[in-house]
Amino acid sequence: WAGLAAVAPALALALAVSVWRRRPRPVREVLFFPSQPVCTEALLSEAVGPGAVTRPCRCPLPRGDCSFSRLLRHLLSARRSLELCLFAFSSPQLAQAVQLLHRRGVRVRVVTDAQSMETRGSQIGLLRHAGIQVRHDQESGYMHHKFAVVDRRMIITGSLNWTTQAIQNNRENVVVVEDHEIVKAFLDEFERIWEEYDPRNYIFFP
Amino acid sequence: WAGLAAVAPALALALAVSVWRRRPRPVREVLFFPSQPVCTEALLSEAVGPGAVTRPCRCPLPRGDCSFSRLLRHLLSARRSLELCLFAFSSPQLAQAVQLLHRRGVRVRVVTDAQSMETRGSQIGLLRHAGIQVRHDQESGYMHHKFAVVDRRMIITGSLNWTTQAIQNNRENVVVVEDHEIVKAFLDEFERIWEEYDPRNYIFFP
Repeated sequence: WAGLAAVAPALALALAVSVWRRRPRPVREVLFFPSQPVCTEALLSEAVGPGAVTRPCRCPLPRGDCSFSRLLRHLLSARRSLELCLFAFSSPQLAQAVQLLHRRGVRVRVVTDAQSMETRGSQIGLLRHAGIQVRHDQESGYMHHKFAVVDRRMIITGSLNWTTQAIQNNRENVVVVEDHEIVKAFLDEFERIWEEYDPRNYIFFP
Repeated sequence: WAGLAAVAPALALALAVSVWRRRPRPVREVLFFPSQPVCTEALLSEAVGPGAVTRPCRCPLPRGDCSFSRLLRHLLSARRSLELCLFAFSSPQLAQAVQLLHRRGVRVRVVTDAQSMETRGSQIGLLRHAGIQVRHDQESGYMHHKFAVVDRRMIITGSLNWTTQAIQNNRENVVVVEDHEIVKAFLDEFERIWEEYDPRNYIFFP
């Protein structure tokens, strides 16, 4: 028994290290933009599911890994829930991805800025038309956040508005992390805003 | 000797835990805005150094902890270097803090957006006048980053432009983390941009 007691700490340490090693490392990534225009058809088709008919896209855009495809991939990893809090949302490819997730049964909720929502090219109308819940501010300040919470597990946040202009032309950053504490802070902020922007609180001017 | 060999793993574990416990926990914080207007005189005076004459400010603004004062405190913790990569910089309080750090011997470098730099209220001219190195883009896209690297140790990044409008009126977020990998990614991006925006590369139109 004395021998067992003596080696127990070493065994415990070995066990802890082995458990820790087997856990997939949490995502911790920074994406920088501008990102080159790429074909995202394959990524989107894959995400539809195993039964989907996929035809190779014939567009001349390059394939391959870049900041934008990585952002899209993280977004498409959603299985249960997606909270979007976006000042501007006019990227057709990102809107396609969000609609795809909605059709796949992911609970999608969107918060956006009222002024930005009305600009040309905004995808917000399309998302609403697809049956996705959208709420907006009625404040004089901007709802200037640009974040997404995937499956209450991963936060995607940074300077990047979800517009093609920003993706392809601006210097931007997006931080993608799986960190319980940081994700919780953003989720709490989302729920606060979601409640505040409840349509029952909207004021309509005659 | 056999006894010592048996307890060695336990001793090593205890030592590792004690070292790990004594290390200050790395900063990992999310700040949300808008933040109420507060008096920052005390914070700024403290930061000047131990020999500074501090008189209590008589302005009617409230004191105390808020997102903005926390942001300012993190910024003022710089001892050696500060890299700023900011689309818009018009907050007089943040500009005061940056000048204070510069006077205290912190190596400050600023990258900004050329269009934004020319808007009313921009503090960029003042920073240059104070002898701080500033570089800007010459691109059609925006230099839309909003990040700061403190002492190559801490990254401050998010949706917040450094303007009073954004601080006091917008919904914004700022992530503050001490994480070697994330900080390195932002530092590398800063150095890339810093080199690209070298004034020797500027094109002047007649």
